[in-house]
Order: sequence, then C-alpha cells, then structure tokens
Amino acid sequence: MSYQIAVLAGDGIGPEVMAEARKVLSAVEERFNLAIEYSEYDVGGAAIDNHGCPLPEVTLKGCETADAILFGSVGGPKWEHLPPNEQPERGALLPLRGHFELFCNIRPAKLHTGLEHMSPLRSDISAQGFDVLCVRELTGGIYFGKPKGRQGEGENEEAFDTMRYSRKEIRRIAKIAFEAAQGRRKKVTSVDKANVLACSVLWREVVEEVAADFPDVELEHIYIDNATMQLLRRPFDFDVMLCSNLFGDIISDEIAMLTGSMGLLSSVSLNSDGFGLYEPAGGSAPDIAGQGIANPVAQILSAALLLRHSLKLEQAAEAIEVAVAKALSDGYLTAELLPASERGNAKSTREMGDYIAQAV
Amino acid sequence: MSYQIAVLAGDGIGPEVMAEARKVLSAVEERFNLAIEYSEYDVGGAAIDNHGCPLPEVTLKGCETADAILFGSVGGPKWEHLPPNEQPERGALLPLRGHFELFCNIRPAKLHTGLEHMSPLRSDISAQGFDVLCVRELTGGIYFGKPKGRQGEGENEEAFDTMRYSRKEIRRIAKIAFEAAQGRRKKVTSVDKANVLACSVLWREVVEEVAADFPDVELEHIYIDNATMQLLRRPFDFDVMLCSNLFGDIISDEIAMLTGSMGLLSSVSLNSDGFGLYEPAGGSAPDIAGQGIANPVAQILSAALLLRHSLKLEQAAEAIEVAVAKALSDGYLTAELLPASERGNAKSTREMGDYIAQAV
Ligand SMILES: CC(C)[C@H](C(=O)O)[C@@H](O)C(=O)O
Ligand SMILES: CC(C)[C@H](C(=O)O)[C@@H](O)C(=O)O
Repeated sequence: MSYQIAVLAGDGIGPEVMAEARKVLSAVEERFNLAIEYSEYDVGGAAIDNHGCPLPEVTLKGCETADAILFGSVGGPKWEHLPPNEQPERGALLPLRGHFELFCNIRPAKLHTGLEHMSPLRSDISAQGFDVLCVRELTGGIYFGKPKGRQGEGENEEAFDTMRYSRKEIRRIAKIAFEAAQGRRKKVTSVDKANVLACSVLWREVVEEVAADFPDVELEHIYIDNATMQLLRRPFDFDVMLCSNLFGDIISDEIAMLTGSMGLLSSVSLNSDGFGLYEPAGGSAPDIAGQGIANPVAQILSAALLLRHSLKLEQAAEAIEVAVAKALSDGYLTAELLPASERGNAKSTREMGDYIAQAV
Repeated sequence: MSYQIAVLAGDGIGPEVMAEARKVLSAVEERFNLAIEYSEYDVGGAAIDNHGCPLPEVTLKGCETADAILFGSVGGPKWEHLPPNEQPERGALLPLRGHFELFCNIRPAKLHTGLEHMSPLRSDISAQGFDVLCVRELTGGIYFGKPKGRQGEGENEEAFDTMRYSRKEIRRIAKIAFEAAQGRRKKVTSVDKANVLACSVLWREVVEEVAADFPDVELEHIYIDNATMQLLRRPFDFDVMLCSNLFGDIISDEIAMLTGSMGLLSSVSLNSDGFGLYEPAGGSAPDIAGQGIANPVAQILSAALLLRHSLKLEQAAEAIEVAVAKALSDGYLTAELLPASERGNAKSTREMGDYIAQAV
C-alpha cells in the first residue's frame, strides 16, 4: 500500500522543523517497509511571496489528492501589515479548515515528568501534574457564522459577527469528546457561557443528550470565565475539555502554556472521513527562525499523529512516540527547555531530529 | 450634602460581607461628618424567593432614585435549576447593566506584597508582582447584540448570537482605558481576535484612533488566545488591558485568579453620568455562606470605590483603603488567605469589619 502526504512547511521555523520530521518519517518507512510519497506546497507567507496569496489553488489541489496534510506553521512580521483577511494565518488555516470540513480539533497538553519546572504554575500545583485533552469544534461558531461584516456610517458604523451552532454540529463534536474520554479518565468538562449565549444553551442541551449514550463518562459544565480560572488552581481535575470554536481557541492555548513546553505539543484537525491536518501547537516563532535551535519535537509528533489517525499505521506512530520519549528522558533537549545555566548542553534542531530518527 | 445608596446584598455571603461594609461606611460618616442614606432591596435569589423574579420593579426603581448601587453577590445552588434567563446572575446583573447603561467595567488585580504565595503562579514569576487593570466594555458585544435566539427543527435546529460593536461604543470605552493608563504605567494592551472577527478589526481601528490623542501612552494589540497565555508567563508586563465584553469577562477573571486572593478584589461598573454599581469580584460563595468566615474586604473596598467614583468623596475613600491596608499588613487575615497550618489565627468576617471600621 502506498500513501500520499501533502507537506506544507510554511514560514518561520516551519521548514527547519519539517526537515527533521521528514528525517524521522524516512526512518519509519525503512523500519516498517512503507511507501510514503511526499508533495511539498507553499503556504502562508511563503505562498504570498511566491504566488500572491496565502493558500494558492495548486496547494489546495495538492492537498485534495493527498491522504493527509503535514503542516508546519505560518505567519511572521513580514506579512503583518496586510489586511487581516490576507494574512498568512487567517488566509491559510481558516480556508483549509473550511474546505476540508476539519470540524474536529484535538490538542493534548500534558505536563511531562521531569519538565514540571517549565510550567508557569506554582510548584505545589505543577507537582501534581496534569493531562488535559482539548476537543475543539473547528468549522462552526463565530469563526464561520454569517452574517459577518460592517454597516452604517460615521460614529454609528458598526461591525458584526454571528455565532451560530446547529444541533448536528454540536452532536458530532460532543461524540468525539466522549469517545476520547472513554479511552482516558472518563470525564468530560464542557465549556460554555450558557448564562449569556443562546448558542451555549443549545450546546448544553445537546451535550447532555450525547452524555446519555456514555453512562460510564462523567459530564460537568463550566463557564468559560470560570474554566480559565480553575485551570490555574487545579488543572489535574480536568480530563477532556469540550469546547466551541472560540472557547477552544482560548482553552487550548491556555493549557498549552500551562505545560510551559509548547515545543512538544501538536494538534490534529480531522474531518469525518479521517482526513486531517497535523501541526505543531506553537507558532512560526520568527524570532528564532533560521538559527537551528527550534524544537522539532512537536512537528515530529504531528507526523506520528498523522500516521495514527489518517494512515492507520499505529505501530509506526508508536515507534516515533517511543523514540521521542527516549530522547527526552535521555536529556536530549533544545535550549528553551533548559534553565539558562545549562543551555550549553542544548541540542540543535538537527541533533534532535538525528537522535530521534536513529532511535526509530 | 446628603447621599443615597441603594444596597443590594443578594445571596450567599452577600449579606454577611455587606454588614461589614455598612459598619465601615458608618465609621466614615462619623469621621467625615457625612449624611448617607441607605435603602435595602432584594436582588437575585433572595428576590426570586420574595418577589418571583431576580430583579423586581421595586428594586429597579429604588436604584433609580439612588446615587449609586452597592451590590453584594447573587446566585447559588437553590436557583440553578431555573431556565438561564431567570437565574439570579443573568436575570439581575445583565438587566441592571443594560438599564443604567453601565458600559464601563473596571477591575483591578494586584498581587499584594506579602500575599505572593497565594498566587497560583510559579514563585519566580509571582515574586516580580503585577498590577493589572482590566477595562471591560459591559453593555455591548455578544452579550446584548441582536438577533439572538433559535430557529429550525430537529437536527438542523440552530442557535445564534450576534456580536456587534459601533465606533462610538468602542471609542468611549477606549478613552477610559487610555485615561486610566495615564494615571498608571502608561501602557494599554487592547485584547481582540482581529484575525477572525469583524468586530475586532473595527475595534483595532478605533482604538488606534483614540491612541493618537494619548501620545504619552503606549498601545499594543494582542489576540485573546495569546493574552490568556502571556498573562501566565509575564503578568508584570501588563498595565491596562482594554477588552470587549466577552473577552473582558475572561481576562478579568483570569487576572483575579492570578492574584490568588479574590476576596480582596472589587469591581466598578459605571455609566457616563458617574452613576455606578460596585461589587466584589468573587461570587456568592454558597459553600461558605452563613459561617462567618467570608472575607469582607472586597465588599468594603467596593464601598470605598463608590465613595470615590460616584459620590466624589476622595478623602473618605482613601480613609477606607488605608484602613484595609493596615488590617492586611497587621496580619489581620481571613482563613482563605492563610496556609492550613495558620488557620487558627484566622479572623472572622465580623472581626475584619470591626478592625477596619476601628482603623477608620
Ligand atoms: C490563526 C488563528 C486564526 C487560529 C485560530 O484562532 O483558530 C489559531 O489561533 C489557532 O488556534 O489555530
Ligand atoms: C454572571 C455573568 C452574566 C457575568 C458576566 O459574564 O458578565 C459575570 O461572569 C461577570 O463577569 O460579572
């Protein structure tokens, strides 16, 4: 069997960390005797420079013929002066999500043993560890709801956005959260603002209905403002957090920051056919791009998730995850994970990739 | 000159902490020879029990004849089964904000010297302290935008909310943020999601325009997801945070939790005539209500803010703030501010109130 991966490395550190992910994928291909074909396409700022827009037709077509998208990161100061619609992040990520109906975004955030000191939380809180999975609805809500625009003149000119959710949109993402919880600690925390939003009231109703089919999973509801707070005091009390598009944007970033090691986190965006986009949770980090010091682990783990979810190659995925765990426990770390005094021992982007590929 | 205050103690710990605020206000009246009249009205769950709705006409009329509202807190498990619209929080706070056009919400969050250990942040971060002022728009955005509701049938049934902002709504709240920054560290961080929301794009435009009138104040823009993260890593880099209604709900709660001492924080909601509602930032805390252990400081400081902003009694306000600072630095603390091993020294709600009234 042969597989097709569309590789969209993008901007900033994207190309550097992607090179290491490719190296690790090659090692996996060899070990498991797989035939994977890669097609590279421009996206984001690189695509603006080469094609005049952040998501060119050729990139979109290329993704359509692939089994999955391995995405790097997009954006940087060079393109920040552009109108919001044309900027790399909004102009590439949102249309990709919409076009492939990638309604389900999954972002795990776990505090790795030995890396507790990286968390910005007080030591007695981080010492208890945490392992939260954010399941975020990604193609609905206020991101895509119509109407969206402006009207009126002068000081009365107003802008408007529409938050909109149907029962079926809520149901399909809620199901995924409950299924995920069954394979974990069996608890779903649904995040909403049902004391203010009509969408959240419907959200609660449908989530309750879905919960009835999962009697082994505990369900709790929490307001977004309170969720933001409780994550700071007791992150270990949360297992799966089920969120609408906007609230998931906030919660997934908060939990990522709570680990303090964003360079280790990846994110999966899936549609109902198992087609998906796999990307590191951190951004394009233009401040450290080109220096060979970026952490490639998140990109490498994105590749593992791609093998698991879109190509159904569980063993190959695990081989990568085991190799990454080995690198980390062997003390193979990039600079940002080390205290200033130990930065002399930091590994480069390439050294990390080589070591992990070797371990595979 | 004589003043009228509408006192809405509400539910949970509301009445207990309000009693101490009244005690302190009496001491201030005596010291400064003021004549303040108080009228008490039911609100929230108490009003549901006595009048069948969380904001009875008599309460609203009473507030209309007053110079300001001193608010306790509303809500509790007893009323949680009610439909969202009729619940104490939504049914009382939102109509009060709307009716009096309290468009400006100000929530300070400061890490008190000596209470750094209360913060959930890592000690090297909290050791640097922080002092953030959240200026939140309170009568616009997705809270009040029309249309809001439901339509359709079966699985296609959908709910919708509208986020809506006009130039003038943005301008008036932005001005307040810049004015506040002038009296502080001269920096405004405007929180938005301009990479997704049309409202945020307009928000940025108007905030930039307002900034031009305040050349001495630095302006930066940050996305809500990134703001949630950066507050965890470097809260000390923020001075005034300017937020729309929904984002301000999230940010003000996050910064309150970052202090770890919610019982010390109060919140001001003002209209353009200086009329305002003053309340503690924490909730009704039904779990500790009636035990005489709740911290009355936030309610007492709310009274100080009322004297300052609505009654223009600066000296009286300061007298209260000085007395509170003295109590805290004298080690006069309620249980939740003490480590478990020192709870034996905890002061009761009443002891705190007596001590502060005495100090006035
Ligand atoms: C770039 C932006 C549009 C995007 C979002 O808000 O979804 C990003 O923050 C993310 O979470 O992937
Ligand atoms: C009770 C609720 C409607 C309210 C809000 O969201 O504004 C509360 O969270 C607050 O911040 O005062």
